[in-house]
Amino acid sequence: MTNAPDRPIAADSIGLLEGLTTTRSIRRYTDDPVPDEAMRDIMFAATRAPSGSNRQPFRFIVLRDGEIAEQAKAIIGRGARAVWAAKRENEGYDKGSGIDPDSPKARMARSMERYVDDMEKVPVLILPCFVRHRPANATEGASVYPACQNLLLAARGLGYGGVLTIWHAYVEDELRELLQLPDDVVIAATITLGKPEGNHGPVRRVPLGDLIYDGVWGDNAAWAVDPSGTRHTSAGPPKPPPS
Amino acid sequence: MTNAPDRPIAADSIGLLEGLTTTRSIRRYTDDPVPDEAMRDIMFAATRAPSGSNRQPFRFIVLRDGEIAEQAKAIIGRGARAVWAAKRENEGYDKGSGIDPDSPKARMARSMERYVDDMEKVPVLILPCFVRHRPANATEGASVYPACQNLLLAARGLGYGGVLTIWHAYVEDELRELLQLPDDVVIAATITLGKPEGNHGPVRRVPLGDLIYDGVWGDNAAWAVDPSGTRHTSAGPPKPPPS
Repeated sequence: MTNAPDRPIAADSIGLLEGLTTTRSIRRYTDDPVPDEAMRDIMFAATRAPSGSNRQPFRFIVLRDGEIAEQAKAIIGRGARAVWAAKRENEGYDKGSGIDPDSPKARMARSMERYVDDMEKVPVLILPCFVRHRPANATEGASVYPACQNLLLAARGLGYGGVLTIWHAYVEDELRELLQLPDDVVIAATITLGKPEGNHGPVRRVPLGDLIYDGVWGDNAAWAVDPSGTRHTSAGPPKPPPS
Repeated sequence: MTNAPDRPIAADSIGLLEGLTTTRSIRRYTDDPVPDEAMRDIMFAATRAPSGSNRQPFRFIVLRDGEIAEQAKAIIGRGARAVWAAKRENEGYDKGSGIDPDSPKARMARSMERYVDDMEKVPVLILPCFVRHRPANATEGASVYPACQNLLLAARGLGYGGVLTIWHAYVEDELRELLQLPDDVVIAATITLGKPEGNHGPVRRVPLGDLIYDGVWGDNAAWAVDPSGTRHTSAGPPKPPPS
């Protein structure tokens, strides 16, 4: 393998369907950096995603080291900690089953707590941006989020992992100023990336049959059956305990 | 391989990074149907995508055969033909370089013309829907378009291909009535799928360096260099000729 900037994309170590079905949201990272070579491959794959009329209205601000990156991480960290504290309270993470430290609720709370506490240390912070060419509308995300998903999948293919969040939404003015964003640019997401402390693997969803209709809304698709052994979860954050 | 509905996902025939970087938008299909087994794998992969707080607010209406599917395809076909005719005129597909039948512009026009003409014959029409749990906002697409991208990638992994469009937008009232959509449900896209007449392969984008910033907006990322041999295209539909 050559280290020339225009070298070929890395060879594959896992298959496409395997990658699609076992890429988890990774919030805990080792201190390992993500080198230029991996960043190039990840961003090349991200930008191969489709967009309306192939306008490619996505721009990715990649923040790793240096003063601007540190400031951006600190701004997002501050916003994330404030929002998470409120969410933890409002959604009752410390009540009901959350009292048991081994409950999924308590484990999720610990994972989120550490994630927001360590935001300044994430190896890579990426802000996918969307350049509007017409007024805001309900389908504009179709031209930026497919690229975000390609990004997360490519990271996985190279031994990394990440998570798509909207933490920027709470500190957007500060970020826009720091990063000198033009007015017609929307920050579409806050993605963090790094080498996972944990592992990728099967993800949990509601049963497939609940998500797929064959014909009119609500009509069951007889063929929409999870592979044997698929583990399920209910949709959304833990429900607040009855008050 | 077993045909039981809960059988394992199909084995991989291509790698993850290869799939991410060489999945094209496929608009020409053979008459081959997409069988239940492939649909199950495609939709399982689609629904493994992440969504905000894992709420999984995506529902997929899959339309292949039968009266409802035929009606839905006819409604979308009618809308698509009307919109394409206007776009062909407004964006000057038949002017400037479009006069040359071998120009990219003329080839795109022929491909689109056939695509909308044959909408009634597409093997699979899928309407990914988004169930709102809060007022419309700029980042809600983050919870449905990653699943759409997984869908297109999984189709590719199984030997199929598709394209994400917004043709529904022009005939939405009729579709909503036919498919009995609840009021809080947004149709996020119109995806068509089938066995490609052509091939997948490298896609064309603007140079990677134009899409990636390192630090503030507009700051070049020295490492963002396309692999050698990458072919480029300008962003967006053909520009109207100077009048």
